[in-house]
Amino acid sequence: AAHMRLVQFRRVGDSGGIRVGVEQGEGLGVVDLKAFDPSMPSTVKELLELGDKGLECAERALASGRCVLERSHIKLLSPVLAPEKVVCVGMNYRDHCLEQNAPIPKEPIIFSKFPSAITGPYDDILLPSESEEVDWEVELAFVIGRRGKDIKEEDALSYVAGFTVANDVSARDWQMGRNGKQWLLGKTFDSFCPLGPALVTADAIKDPHSLALRCLVNGEPVQSSNTDQMIFRTEALVSWVSRFVTLTPGDIFLTGTPPGVGVFRKPPIYLKKGDVVECHIQHLGSIINKVV
Amino acid sequence: AAHMRLVQFRRVGDSGGIRVGVEQGEGLGVVDLKAFDPSMPSTVKELLELGDKGLECAERALASGRCVLERSHIKLLSPVLAPEKVVCVGMNYRDHCLEQNAPIPKEPIIFSKFPSAITGPYDDILLPSESEEVDWEVELAFVIGRRGKDIKEEDALSYVAGFTVANDVSARDWQMGRNGKQWLLGKTFDSFCPLGPALVTADAIKDPHSLALRCLVNGEPVQSSNTDQMIFRTEALVSWVSRFVTLTPGDIFLTGTPPGVGVFRKPPIYLKKGDVVECHIQHLGSIINKVV
Repeated sequence: AAHMRLVQFRRVGDSGGIRVGVEQGEGLGVVDLKAFDPSMPSTVKELLELGDKGLECAERALASGRCVLERSHIKLLSPVLAPEKVVCVGMNYRDHCLEQNAPIPKEPIIFSKFPSAITGPYDDILLPSESEEVDWEVELAFVIGRRGKDIKEEDALSYVAGFTVANDVSARDWQMGRNGKQWLLGKTFDSFCPLGPALVTADAIKDPHSLALRCLVNGEPVQSSNTDQMIFRTEALVSWVSRFVTLTPGDIFLTGTPPGVGVFRKPPIYLKKGDVVECHIQHLGSIINKVV
Repeated sequence: AAHMRLVQFRRVGDSGGIRVGVEQGEGLGVVDLKAFDPSMPSTVKELLELGDKGLECAERALASGRCVLERSHIKLLSPVLAPEKVVCVGMNYRDHCLEQNAPIPKEPIIFSKFPSAITGPYDDILLPSESEEVDWEVELAFVIGRRGKDIKEEDALSYVAGFTVANDVSARDWQMGRNGKQWLLGKTFDSFCPLGPALVTADAIKDPHSLALRCLVNGEPVQSSNTDQMIFRTEALVSWVSRFVTLTPGDIFLTGTPPGVGVFRKPPIYLKKGDVVECHIQHLGSIINKVV
């Protein structure tokens, strides 16, 4: 079974396109999959569409010890780009509901971002002039590995390719006070979905619902919790959303945030130019994004 | 300038993929673009990404009178598939606001469907077992032709490739009563976005805000209005949404529906198996979808 950290990258100084890589370990050298096997695709989404065949080739590439690029020679991108869907879940941590005196939801609350919001693990968050209330949200994200509709909870994990770290950046003024209370616009400004650093394959994570996660702003911890606080877990979310829509390889789920966001602080705190936001999840790694 | 009706189709009995076509007129023969010029792409989205070069080739193909397929030999698909975004607008007809005693919005209300909801102009609408309140909404749709951010209203029409007909099928129970009042789930069941029959290029439509539009259920008129009732017009919508997100070729906008939807009838009427829904817009044509 695949225990891998899949990444997407560009070679520094190379005007060429996206490549798929396999990390030799968190932050270590990256095996260039297409250099190992030119028949392999250039994106993780296409690799997932190949099913076991693609993942097995990536395993062979990693085991070969060949075609390794040093980190200084690459720029990491989001591990998935151009998904059909970015599915987001609201109010999905018990401790986050307590924080805002909100009842625990009886059903998942599903909203979305446009794929244009996705940005790389170390890319900048663009502060829009339209908002005065841009906030952080560290979240466990997972990526769908195969096509499905009406998926049962007991089968759901077999549809998950792996896990990664997301920041569900949110303009609270637009989310909560405008656009007819539809959250979409406040959630989907360009760069409002930093993602990465790697897609860690599902088999490499013993229990995705027992991972410490935290967010730091300028090095100060602002969120610190554990995915065991999730109300609707990976299996339940896959099953629930697949009652409505066909899921397809590359679809990204953001599973909700724990307490400690800026909007519920007294007084509220929002991101400003120059801030550095780090979102970290145990075994998955960190994404670090500067606000510009 | 391009006055064309672009379509996507498969050849009947051909297991091959999607092709781009140009109609010789509404409902007439279809020029197979790739047969005319094998260097041309297989999807309208890729054609739009080529810019003027792609549209000029399509014009030459149409003018050639060659490579024409009879309608009986093709199955029409949605004129655009796999867009990055399906942007929808709520409460955007004056007469629809009056119907529900709602105030005229001061800003556009933006929500979305996932691209997986898109279906062909004559394909079936799948009635989900999860909803008892599935409703119709005829809407003018437009498609983005080139990439842009922070687009001024006076430049906005140059970003629009063309217009088509959409049915913004809506599960009212999910839209209005569940999912924390976020409309997404009720709007995005598989098959809830019939689209077509053709992408009519913008130059072919003298005034997109003076088009009669209507919806018929089993031949009975249920919606009948004119796009002159739109509150936020094409230019305003392009400009507004581009303040939040980068628009890209193939992005689809559904511009809102006039009065006559089922939910506001007394008593309410909803779609049931066997119903046939026709959405028609002047100069654009009809989409006809059976509910199964």
